[in-house]
Amino acid sequence: MNRPSPHPAAPRGTEVTVAVCQIAPQVGDTTGNRRRIREAVRTAAERGAQVVVLPELAATGYVFTDAAELRTVAEPPDGDTIKEWEALAARHDLVVVGGFAERAEDGHVYNAAALVDPTGLRATYRKAHLWNGEKTWGFTPGDTPPPVIDTPHGRIGFMVCYDLEFPEWVRLAALDGAELLCGPVNWPLYPRPRGERPGEIVRVQADASVNRMFVAVADRTGTERGQDWLGGSAIIDADGYPVTALRLGEEAILTATLDLTEARNKAIGETNDVHADRRPALYARPAGERP
Amino acid sequence: MNRPSPHPAAPRGTEVTVAVCQIAPQVGDTTGNRRRIREAVRTAAERGAQVVVLPELAATGYVFTDAAELRTVAEPPDGDTIKEWEALAARHDLVVVGGFAERAEDGHVYNAAALVDPTGLRATYRKAHLWNGEKTWGFTPGDTPPPVIDTPHGRIGFMVCYDLEFPEWVRLAALDGAELLCGPVNWPLYPRPRGERPGEIVRVQADASVNRMFVAVADRTGTERGQDWLGGSAIIDADGYPVTALRLGEEAILTATLDLTEARNKAIGETNDVHADRRPALYARPAGERP
Repeated sequence: MNRPSPHPAAPRGTEVTVAVCQIAPQVGDTTGNRRRIREAVRTAAERGAQVVVLPELAATGYVFTDAAELRTVAEPPDGDTIKEWEALAARHDLVVVGGFAERAEDGHVYNAAALVDPTGLRATYRKAHLWNGEKTWGFTPGDTPPPVIDTPHGRIGFMVCYDLEFPEWVRLAALDGAELLCGPVNWPLYPRPRGERPGEIVRVQADASVNRMFVAVADRTGTERGQDWLGGSAIIDADGYPVTALRLGEEAILTATLDLTEARNKAIGETNDVHADRRPALYARPAGERP
Repeated sequence: MNRPSPHPAAPRGTEVTVAVCQIAPQVGDTTGNRRRIREAVRTAAERGAQVVVLPELAATGYVFTDAAELRTVAEPPDGDTIKEWEALAARHDLVVVGGFAERAEDGHVYNAAALVDPTGLRATYRKAHLWNGEKTWGFTPGDTPPPVIDTPHGRIGFMVCYDLEFPEWVRLAALDGAELLCGPVNWPLYPRPRGERPGEIVRVQADASVNRMFVAVADRTGTERGQDWLGGSAIIDADGYPVTALRLGEEAILTATLDLTEARNKAIGETNDVHADRRPALYARPAGERP
């Protein structure tokens, strides 16, 4: 809406209802976390959701004590957590994107996310930009770009939390055609100037608008081992504006019905296009060439 | 402020007062535009400004009728406009960054910006990402990265308007060490959802925070040949938050005193760094490799 976009009229059937689940997982309470996720997905489905986004590390909680604790709860992609998400996706006929701790065959543990649809697991992703304690808890950074998957409910890309703060990374998903970028996140609560929207949300608004791509971020809330969480979940339109009221810090499920096909049109104004106007030959800089 | 940053205490003498001049140039009124700029710079200087940012095409106005009209007002970098800015910079002992229409020796006309300090013209820049009518009015896009200049008042990068919406371009200036990114802009007024901050400002907030760099944007205001302008000038801190109240649509000069050395520290949290955490080897994609 910030700039007049010559969107074609939406053909019938292109609208998708997206839910972001602002829940409060607790590290060490795997059973409770599974229940929280089941209940959130069921509630989202009752509200018509076809795409449901869960927070980062939704299945395990976040604030680990050490690498040993993380290892005890990490699971392979065919473990109980993803199996349950597959069952939920099939039962409710929807797509689930959420974060889990992946114990991989290579012996490493990744801060991962999975996209599951009614046919089962479609893709996993491993967070490439690790945050703070994730390094000391023994997570290995991923080195593969964010997946972009054609689902029954739109072309969906996904990445995890701090990844969203690297516009180059977001751009890859957008250039690969993501109409909706899903972001499982765990945003710590930090001070901010009075009256200001949290910077984490501002940054994903920019991610959306510079790519004319929808963004759905599911943040966690609550307090965990003394860490307060923001609870800043948001569903952002392709112009970069939130389409629902924020529910900062509450337990909440936000839903919005979006015409994701709008994101296929990168035009802004009469003669501009946020992707075609890029000048990638000018952005490249030979390694080491720093004045 | 969004994330705890281990900023070193500012040594004395590192604070810089920055002003952004939200004026209302009018195309065709070159004499009036020069006066508006003189008065704005003088007012800014009276308020202690050491760096003064003017809007895009401040000397000429923006809404040209055609290429012929643009050519009549475009000037070389040693023309009267820049000469006057040099005199203002010397008289008031400050840095001026502002936009002008450059008639170059190669016969092209560029949507340019200049950085002038008390010693004279230090650098010019030619907008690389052209907006809408700029193409039909005969502006040629630039193809050189944004300059980053060591001035008596900090290490300053600059680019023009739509350039700011390409995070790759902003990143170049940041990686080259810009502590303050100055943006002469002309932001058209577009509708936006009620209560939302204009997306243009949101995007420069993100530019600032993902690079831990100050950003000072001077937008124009008023109406010109039927075009309404936003008047969205802002001074953004290295955490991505505006440091002064916005004065949307008003004629105004916003000033703020900043410790630009904060921008030299890219650390966020205990073990993260917005530049060192980048993974450029993963961002590069061979030309043409698009799934």
